[in-house]
Amino acid sequence: MSEPFDAVDVIQTKRDKGTLSDAQIDWVIDAYTRGVVAEEQMAALAMAIFLNDLNPDELNRWTAAMLNSGEHLNYSDLPGPTADKHSTGGVGDKITLPLAPLVASFGVIVPQLSGRGLGHTGGTLDKLEAIPGWRAALTNDEMRHQLAEIGAVICQAGSGLAPADRKLYALRDVTATVDCIPLIASSIMSKKLAEGTDALVLDVKYGSGAFMRDYDKAKELATTLVAIGKDAGVNTTALLTNMETPLGLTVGNALEVREAVEVLAGGGPEDVVELTVALAREMLECASENVATMGVPAAGLHPGESKTNKFAMWLAEQDPAENLKNGKAMDVWRSMIAAQGGNPDAELPWAKATETVTASESGYITQIDALSVGIAARRLGAGRARKEDSVQAGAGVVLHKKPGDKVKAGEVIFELHTDTPEKFARAREALNWEIGPKPEPSTLIAERIA
Amino acid sequence: MSEPFDAVDVIQTKRDKGTLSDAQIDWVIDAYTRGVVAEEQMAALAMAIFLNDLNPDELNRWTAAMLNSGEHLNYSDLPGPTADKHSTGGVGDKITLPLAPLVASFGVIVPQLSGRGLGHTGGTLDKLEAIPGWRAALTNDEMRHQLAEIGAVICQAGSGLAPADRKLYALRDVTATVDCIPLIASSIMSKKLAEGTDALVLDVKYGSGAFMRDYDKAKELATTLVAIGKDAGVNTTALLTNMETPLGLTVGNALEVREAVEVLAGGGPEDVVELTVALAREMLECASENVATMGVPAAGLHPGESKTNKFAMWLAEQDPAENLKNGKAMDVWRSMIAAQGGNPDAELPWAKATETVTASESGYITQIDALSVGIAARRLGAGRARKEDSVQAGAGVVLHKKPGDKVKAGEVIFELHTDTPEKFARAREALNWEIGPKPEPSTLIAERIA
Repeated sequence: MSEPFDAVDVIQTKRDKGTLSDAQIDWVIDAYTRGVVAEEQMAALAMAIFLNDLNPDELNRWTAAMLNSGEHLNYSDLPGPTADKHSTGGVGDKITLPLAPLVASFGVIVPQLSGRGLGHTGGTLDKLEAIPGWRAALTNDEMRHQLAEIGAVICQAGSGLAPADRKLYALRDVTATVDCIPLIASSIMSKKLAEGTDALVLDVKYGSGAFMRDYDKAKELATTLVAIGKDAGVNTTALLTNMETPLGLTVGNALEVREAVEVLAGGGPEDVVELTVALAREMLECASENVATMGVPAAGLHPGESKTNKFAMWLAEQDPAENLKNGKAMDVWRSMIAAQGGNPDAELPWAKATETVTASESGYITQIDALSVGIAARRLGAGRARKEDSVQAGAGVVLHKKPGDKVKAGEVIFELHTDTPEKFARAREALNWEIGPKPEPSTLIAERIA
Repeated sequence: MSEPFDAVDVIQTKRDKGTLSDAQIDWVIDAYTRGVVAEEQMAALAMAIFLNDLNPDELNRWTAAMLNSGEHLNYSDLPGPTADKHSTGGVGDKITLPLAPLVASFGVIVPQLSGRGLGHTGGTLDKLEAIPGWRAALTNDEMRHQLAEIGAVICQAGSGLAPADRKLYALRDVTATVDCIPLIASSIMSKKLAEGTDALVLDVKYGSGAFMRDYDKAKELATTLVAIGKDAGVNTTALLTNMETPLGLTVGNALEVREAVEVLAGGGPEDVVELTVALAREMLECASENVATMGVPAAGLHPGESKTNKFAMWLAEQDPAENLKNGKAMDVWRSMIAAQGGNPDAELPWAKATETVTASESGYITQIDALSVGIAARRLGAGRARKEDSVQAGAGVVLHKKPGDKVKAGEVIFELHTDTPEKFARAREALNWEIGPKPEPSTLIAERIA
């Protein structure tokens, strides 16, 4: 088969700060997926993009080409608007767990494809696998069936979605081309767009535990992601949220599921509730707008029916916090877990050994570094250093204090959990916190990008 | 075996405009040669170097690391100073053929490793292979023996020299990282330094038939090459020479050998003689300086012997043109060809068919584009489009006119030679020349860099 382009010309265009044509982008992603563009050629192109950037048009096309390298799920025939959320990853970030059933409890369909943890950040699938019997891998048919019946699914992305991204992601990892906004943004969005959602809310983290520590870089990423989503016809917004300190009081798989269930039961830590409700509100608003403007069908309705606008208005008026308090979100959670083989009533595993870390002086907690807690939890067995590693369901860190809390010398700050107690010492070494005078309260949700 | 560095860190350093340490450079070249640094990693690093450059210290170390990836020839035990020449390649550039025996005829040893042609430029080995029986491949022992006996050898570079460069050269070719001065310079110099010469004269071409068309870029390359050579302790100079039009009156393998023999016989085209003599003068001067300052031994002498300085002074005073006229260079040529199995008296092959290209108007030749003649010669069979192609010994182009010559309508400008006459039409299409009013004479040797 004769190829319409030469990879060297494509690389050279970007190397010389030129603009890649739509046809060049479509070809290079497709040919890379087919193995016609070699790994070393894509590595050179990725470095040229890293150093010379992609303009917004190039980026939209690049994302679309990655999306088109694989299958494109479509839930437009399901009886309701769809909405999805993506977080750029943090420490103690269990928000997906209460959020998906909460949003579904309002009649919005949530097809949430998730991943596993790597490095200091946890993965939603690892957390849910702490529930006895729960399985992450569903077929497309199982996923569709569950969405039609229950309205929410959290499962593993199939290998058919954006295969170009999977190849490119592995390549970027070994060629120092990871930390590049157009490549990050197209990787995230190609997978999210392949999920076939009408609305997308992004939780873009900044701070020590975030992938993008720097606020301005995180904002640039958020803006880029929202622009790609809107260009692709998906109603997209982003919240910029603080990841200087862990979310909630638990970091670790079973520990975080327990905390998520507390939130679904109307309790749980204030910051986890705040972010869950804020993201749910965004998803409901986006879904409401889609119902109103695009005629996305509400349950039992078809586009154009008069009840559509009524549903849109109703959605926009809802307070997501209500369905945490009245048990409706919990009902969806229990059905969702059960549908994937999990027992929502099962006792979750505990680690074999615990140790505490106490305060050596009195005062206020001024800082608990998110990255340090993430590393400690990983060392205790809650996360992975390499993709091949397995995780301990019970391992992790429980925070007895959060920044702003008063502490007395000798009081417990952290509780460490592990099945491998020889790891306690290395986990303690990682932990980084400070005690001092009463700090200013910090903001969790810094900015909204729409 | 545990590695002292991670390729990702090395790539990242250059990606972020940092300076690679000596240890990083040594490791990355060695690990690439061993296959521990993957092709895609070196591709990303090469693109980072392309876009962010290497500073002079990095470049010297990079060159040394490439040199050290293979064997290092050493002729310091031979009875005489050594000198070598490298050309960046041009059209009709047969200068190596008369130059090596000419310089050797003054008692300077010339270990000239050469290559084959690719694209529009010819290769010295392809030209010499037009001589019946001549062989390009010598063992290191054969090469040393010939240098000791005859003083000059032109042969193929063994695969043991700078293997890192061979790997990297092939990689650059497919990743749009060829046209990059530090990578070009380190490629050339790692091979030349591996030859074990004490003196090196570079013929850096500019103009349409040159690798670097632009004068300033060619000058930057020449300056870079000279700096690397000097840093490595090799007495290096460069001439910047004009490659807007072919050198001499012949382009093609056997055709060029005939012209070289004319020069060795005291005749030949003015420009070929001028450049041969100028390069020989540079080589003799460099060799003379080495004899004087470094005590490089003259024939039958050892460093420090009183005759050394006498030889140095004698060398510096010689006029290379003399040994073209008095037959001494021709004697070395005949011995050199015979030592490699060639018959210096053999009839050289002629192509089966010829055609002429004539002037359509009268006037002066104002321009004969070197690149166009190189392409025509390649199409006639004198060169290669791809490495795997073979060449025709007799094919090529004979110029009956040069820029500045008067021409009448109907007079022959070009004579095309080929064994495959179906190629005449495509060769004619390539040719590009102009007739107009008498042009200003052009300069062959524009500048000397030392």
